[in-house]
Amino acid sequence: MSPRHPERRSEQSAKAVVQAALELCQEIGYAKVSIEGIASRAGVGKNTIYRWWPSKAAVLLDGLLELWGGAAPFPDTGDIVADLKAQMRAAVASLIADPVGLHYRALIGEAQHDAALAQDLHERLIRPMVLRANERIELAQRQGQIRGDLDPELVVELLYGPVYHHWLLTGRTPEPARLDAIIDATFASMTPQG
Amino acid sequence: MSPRHPERRSEQSAKAVVQAALELCQEIGYAKVSIEGIASRAGVGKNTIYRWWPSKAAVLLDGLLELWGGAAPFPDTGDIVADLKAQMRAAVASLIADPVGLHYRALIGEAQHDAALAQDLHERLIRPMVLRANERIELAQRQGQIRGDLDPELVVELLYGPVYHHWLLTGRTPEPARLDAIIDATFASMTPQG
Repeated sequence: MSPRHPERRSEQSAKAVVQAALELCQEIGYAKVSIEGIASRAGVGKNTIYRWWPSKAAVLLDGLLELWGGAAPFPDTGDIVADLKAQMRAAVASLIADPVGLHYRALIGEAQHDAALAQDLHERLIRPMVLRANERIELAQRQGQIRGDLDPELVVELLYGPVYHHWLLTGRTPEPARLDAIIDATFASMTPQG
Repeated sequence: MSPRHPERRSEQSAKAVVQAALELCQEIGYAKVSIEGIASRAGVGKNTIYRWWPSKAAVLLDGLLELWGGAAPFPDTGDIVADLKAQMRAAVASLIADPVGLHYRALIGEAQHDAALAQDLHERLIRPMVLRANERIELAQRQGQIRGDLDPELVVELLYGPVYHHWLLTGRTPEPARLDAIIDATFASMTPQG
């Protein structure tokens, strides 16, 4: 806090701002949070926040990335269907985990009308998750467990698309049995087998 | 406009409010639209709007439902894969159609932190679409083109989930070839066939 270390004081202020945003979102809900409210809780001026972040959503994204930590890892037992069921069950649990899921859902919502946030959210959170999933899927393709002609990103969308569709349009995530049914159906083909 | 017909004057005011909300969202973007701005454009008082709608999103939902009209119908040529490809291509076109897609996307975004809106959007717009899709899928099941043991709503999520996932997380919709690949993969099974 000595004037010889202004960057350290800045860092402490930045942490206080992010922490205040996380707390307020959890306490009163994203829609009611304001930059003024964050500034007041963090004990900084509004201009300090606007110097570092363009919007309350940008502050919350920094907070979410801190909380997120290592998202559900992909196991490798050699059985891709079993591994996906385990991984997706853990991933879905984090979508409804308070506060991570709350913040993530609020940011996806805000990204629908904030293009800069949408790009940040995609680059910093979603894209890295997709790339990790791709790796596991490519391994399964090399092991002959997923058709090699399928684009790994298409496979991610086939598996995760139904989960996000359900979550974002109903506010609920699929039950474990439903999640298994999504994965089984994706692997089994919807066409009746003769 | 005679005082003997107050309900008619109300109806005209309501139409002006909805029209103003649609225009403003298209002109300045959903995030910048305010109830004040809608009231001013429609030539009514703010309180008139709040008497009928809880939020700007609720006004916009009424407007979207008017614009939406008959969404992409499901053809029935007897070939479910061809019919789904035709229907989903038309449906995806409406997701990026200006202004329908813009408004729909803004409302899905807002629904992530407005539970009352989420319920309205689901009941009035999404649920009826799902029910129409279910009918076509059940027909395909009776015709032996889709496995009869699959819940029709699961089939809707398997098909539409990847589209919405892509759209809501990247802001873009799948290209026609990608859309066909989603449908083909869902029918074909991801497992290599011997």
